[in-house]
Amino acid sequence: MLKPVVAIVMGSQSDWPTMRLAAETLETLEIEYEARIVSAHRTPERMVDFATNARAEGFQIIIAGAGGAAHLPGMIAAMTPLPVFGVPVRSKALSGQDSLLSIVQMPGGIPVGTLAIGEPGAINAALLAAAVLALNDDDLADRLDAYRAQQTASVPMFPTDTE
Amino acid sequence: MLKPVVAIVMGSQSDWPTMRLAAETLETLEIEYEARIVSAHRTPERMVDFATNARAEGFQIIIAGAGGAAHLPGMIAAMTPLPVFGVPVRSKALSGQDSLLSIVQMPGGIPVGTLAIGEPGAINAALLAAAVLALNDDDLADRLDAYRAQQTASVPMFPTDTE
Amino acid sequence: MLKPVVAIVMGSQSDWPTMRLAAETLETLEIEYEARIVSAHRTPERMVDFATNARAEGFQIIIAGAGGAAHLPGMIAAMTPLPVFGVPVRSKALSGQDSLLSIVQMPGGIPVGTLAIGEPGAINAALLAAAVLALNDDDLADRLDAYRAQQTASVPMFPTDTE
Amino acid sequence: MLKPVVAIVMGSQSDWPTMRLAAETLETLEIEYEARIVSAHRTPERMVDFATNARAEGFQIIIAGAGGAAHLPGMIAAMTPLPVFGVPVRSKALSGQDSLLSIVQMPGGIPVGTLAIGEPGAINAALLAAAVLALNDDDLADRLDAYRAQQTASVPMFPTDTE
Amino acid sequence: MLKPVVAIVMGSQSDWPTMRLAAETLETLEIEYEARIVSAHRTPERMVDFATNARAEGFQIIIAGAGGAAHLPGMIAAMTPLPVFGVPVRSKALSGQDSLLSIVQMPGGIPVGTLAIGEPGAINAALLAAAVLALNDDDLADRLDAYRAQQTASVPMFPTDTE
Amino acid sequence: MLKPVVAIVMGSQSDWPTMRLAAETLETLEIEYEARIVSAHRTPERMVDFATNARAEGFQIIIAGAGGAAHLPGMIAAMTPLPVFGVPVRSKALSGQDSLLSIVQMPGGIPVGTLAIGEPGAINAALLAAAVLALNDDDLADRLDAYRAQQTASVPMFPTDTE
Amino acid sequence: MLKPVVAIVMGSQSDWPTMRLAAETLETLEIEYEARIVSAHRTPERMVDFATNARAEGFQIIIAGAGGAAHLPGMIAAMTPLPVFGVPVRSKALSGQDSLLSIVQMPGGIPVGTLAIGEPGAINAALLAAAVLALNDDDLADRLDAYRAQQTASVPMFPTDTE
Amino acid sequence: MLKPVVAIVMGSQSDWPTMRLAAETLETLEIEYEARIVSAHRTPERMVDFATNARAEGFQIIIAGAGGAAHLPGMIAAMTPLPVFGVPVRSKALSGQDSLLSIVQMPGGIPVGTLAIGEPGAINAALLAAAVLALNDDDLADRLDAYRAQQTASVPMFPTDTE
Repeated sequence: MLKPVVAIVMGSQSDWPTMRLAAETLETLEIEYEARIVSAHRTPERMVDFATNARAEGFQIIIAGAGGAAHLPGMIAAMTPLPVFGVPVRSKALSGQDSLLSIVQMPGGIPVGTLAIGEPGAINAALLAAAVLALNDDDLADRLDAYRAQQTASVPMFPTDTE
Repeated sequence: MLKPVVAIVMGSQSDWPTMRLAAETLETLEIEYEARIVSAHRTPERMVDFATNARAEGFQIIIAGAGGAAHLPGMIAAMTPLPVFGVPVRSKALSGQDSLLSIVQMPGGIPVGTLAIGEPGAINAALLAAAVLALNDDDLADRLDAYRAQQTASVPMFPTDTE
Repeated sequence: MLKPVVAIVMGSQSDWPTMRLAAETLETLEIEYEARIVSAHRTPERMVDFATNARAEGFQIIIAGAGGAAHLPGMIAAMTPLPVFGVPVRSKALSGQDSLLSIVQMPGGIPVGTLAIGEPGAINAALLAAAVLALNDDDLADRLDAYRAQQTASVPMFPTDTE
Repeated sequence: MLKPVVAIVMGSQSDWPTMRLAAETLETLEIEYEARIVSAHRTPERMVDFATNARAEGFQIIIAGAGGAAHLPGMIAAMTPLPVFGVPVRSKALSGQDSLLSIVQMPGGIPVGTLAIGEPGAINAALLAAAVLALNDDDLADRLDAYRAQQTASVPMFPTDTE
Repeated sequence: MLKPVVAIVMGSQSDWPTMRLAAETLETLEIEYEARIVSAHRTPERMVDFATNARAEGFQIIIAGAGGAAHLPGMIAAMTPLPVFGVPVRSKALSGQDSLLSIVQMPGGIPVGTLAIGEPGAINAALLAAAVLALNDDDLADRLDAYRAQQTASVPMFPTDTE
Repeated sequence: MLKPVVAIVMGSQSDWPTMRLAAETLETLEIEYEARIVSAHRTPERMVDFATNARAEGFQIIIAGAGGAAHLPGMIAAMTPLPVFGVPVRSKALSGQDSLLSIVQMPGGIPVGTLAIGEPGAINAALLAAAVLALNDDDLADRLDAYRAQQTASVPMFPTDTE
Repeated sequence: MLKPVVAIVMGSQSDWPTMRLAAETLETLEIEYEARIVSAHRTPERMVDFATNARAEGFQIIIAGAGGAAHLPGMIAAMTPLPVFGVPVRSKALSGQDSLLSIVQMPGGIPVGTLAIGEPGAINAALLAAAVLALNDDDLADRLDAYRAQQTASVPMFPTDTE
Repeated sequence: MLKPVVAIVMGSQSDWPTMRLAAETLETLEIEYEARIVSAHRTPERMVDFATNARAEGFQIIIAGAGGAAHLPGMIAAMTPLPVFGVPVRSKALSGQDSLLSIVQMPGGIPVGTLAIGEPGAINAALLAAAVLALNDDDLADRLDAYRAQQTASVPMFPTDTE
């Protein structure tokens, strides 16, 4: 079995319905990943362990999703040199506006590449990871090109009323 | 010399002009404190060390100020049982709206008592710490009552044009 | 029977489904509390009576929840030296953004330690009260440590699809 | 000397540069007023005294200005049957967005007629007070009509570059 | 039959479920009113006619509700010397944030006393109208005092779980 | 058959329930149109082809609807001299606030006439197109006048409870 | 002298520094225009006269700029069949967010094509007017094409540090 | 001379004071880059050329900065398989809130890894690019580790008043 190159981490089980779309997109592109629950607030030690060991474990990219005061992506980014992509999960009261600002507004020095709020962001975190990995994987680059070509081809020319 | 009971921590030197007001207010109330720079993002190990040892070091309350994707208060709260009070520092682009949401919107389980954006929040973090400490310190309770009485007495009855 | 040390006050019966979580959390931690409805706007005299007598009644901490133009936490804080923790209840039109700003943006001089909007905030107000009380109650400190340890232990390692 | 019929109250001296425009507008319309500093948070007793006695003192309308977590207008409205008009003063971090929501989002039962943020709101609070008083004061109604007519006449037909 | 002294106007039939609460509150206080649909955008002539004739028709106060780019309250205020109270109706996309800003942010010179978004605002517009009319109607003042006293009396002391 | 003079384009089939209202409004006014799906992000070539050829194809006005990071209206405007009217479609997380800002905040040099978020915006894009075309089509001007007159006539004088 | 085909109207002289850019852009494109001050709130009769007569006066397009509770563009659109383009002028407290929402969120039935907040919006209102007029004016179409070509040509290939 | 592997593109010269920080950070890390002005709106052909050829030109990562209705990052991402990192430049009226939403809220299918508003975002875009390139460049990985170590070391332990 291949080692996973992408880690998908999230703050709680309740983020999985969103983050699952990242996992499914990676599967479509045949990229090995591992999904874990790592809570910055409830399991800080687990987070420190995960983040400080992620490179040594063989991960190349980390996708981190969280909602509300979403500290997970930024804190992981603070403890690993790997690229971290953040997914703001929709929150109950503020619909992800808090999640977005908590993830994207990182100070100069520690980057988190942030995607859109919710499901589109989860899909896109996977696609961005694929784009990064494809820089040194021609087969993946081909698969990604095919994915994009199919995506383009699937857009109908005209709207239909059957929705 | 008395041991400090309040720790004032902040993400960077640039937060000091705001957080200094917390320090000054504690001084006015004769509360021992120590001010440190602890960056969640640039010095995560220092943060972990500080937070996990704060109770053992003798601190009773932690005041944490940060701006932008302000993770410091919440991350410290995740690693100490002590009460943590957060001060959202005004940020350049969003004037502290990002700081506020990043600090206050903590998930159930890990509380951060959040004060107002900027200087008023720094003053009030100190006053809230004093109110907590005064629960078991009658002298401090008297000093705090006097502070509040003086504050009330200092409000003029009528506005004046000499401003 | 033990005297309650925490007062949970709220602006109306409609805040109870949120504030009940504060009560339940205090119960879990075996902290005596009393819950009352005190409306800043509809029962201002009751509010003045409550706030000015809270210390003499033996309360040590006040948790106040309110929504919309949420004046209750700040007004109580203006009339008692006790620590006041505010819970912004979600409002119908603005989903608690008005509640949050009305509670957290207190002027320098009168602090309200503000928690997250809605249910997480109610839970956290109780936990913050516990953290304060635990400063001088070793048994409670142990219970709070246990609560946090259990919380950490309850976070699963991997997400599951059975949600 | 005539008794003042309008009270202009504000939370602090720093609100006066804004609220002075309400005073000046009342003067222009020859309406007697009195301006006082009444802080909901720093002088709650003074506020209670003022609000509960305002009708007996002969006031007919109360204009209240405050910034940030602006509780003054709503709390006065809770303790007097008189009409209360609120002016959200611009705040440092949030430019009056907090002031506006804290004043306007009152629950059903206790109204505050809220004007615009800042100077225009102060002017308009005075004009709204005048409109109310003019309902039973034909001379004032004439002065208000003249004020409005002059205002209309003063609008130039064409913009000029000399600004 | 008594002439109506309050006009309730609204931009469309869809505002009635909100504005009906203003009508019901006026009825409770035995204040004569008339409710009309006047659209600033779809019936501008009707609006001009209504506003310019409102004083002559015997109205003393105008309550105007509208949503979205809510121009009705401000435009009526521009064409009548009567006090105008505005109710921001919740809008579909922005939940009344657009309605609120469109109504409250009037320029200096033309005031609209603005109430809360949605149903609480409609109730409060009626209560504010009552407070104004009560300045010169002792019977109404008594009824309003009774309404407020009953409101205060109806607030329970303790929350109950039967909700 | 007449050539269509208005193109209605949208980023995806999911925009059609909104944009269909533009189509229906054009039909009511007997204006020929064509509706196409053109995704700025998934079919950029199709977008370039469409935009650069729109004038030559005989279109006179382009109505473009999109949601989220809504780039379609602005990008089409960048590649055609024809007037472009943009409709911000409601988005899932932010209810169209992102769509609105992405469409309306164009830099000086490339205009997009932006309509309201959602259905009202779609209707109004069609009406604005009609107003433009009516400048040189007296029959259409008459139809538009009739449409507006009927709209005015359809506003009832009084609200009814039967809703 | 040619009759003006575009009317630029604005709520007050203070809007001119913004709206002047619309005028200058029209001049560059050799489009006749007239600029007037028409305040929806302070000169409602002037506004009604202007809007109801604009078509008969020979105007083909109206550009309307206003700030705050910006009612001018929408009210003019309610009283003329001509295309109306709205420019949200930056406001003091809310930086034009109120202006934008007050202009763009028109209900279905009365369109205002809204441009960006401030100066870019003023320039673009003129360019959009030009695009509309160019539909039936080949010379203007050529001038507009040249304007756009020059704009494209003026964009440097590389950034320079001399700013 | 080495070929540049990172392209820094921006919508206009006015973005350079922000984007220069990305360039300087890349220089510090000895990463070859090229900075170009590519306006989505004013030079759409240049943008299409750039984006469709970027991979063939040898670029591996694209950093794109833009303000307001910031379409550049998303449109480039639509036309290249390379990873695109977006920097929301502060805008005049909305301080970059429009830029942020226009860049980050991309639909599922086309990702843009978005950094913070303004200068911190520009620095971080470069650091994120470095993290990606370091996955296959051990020397760069070492330089990046050193950069981060130095950054950590440069954080003082205590705040100082000499600011």
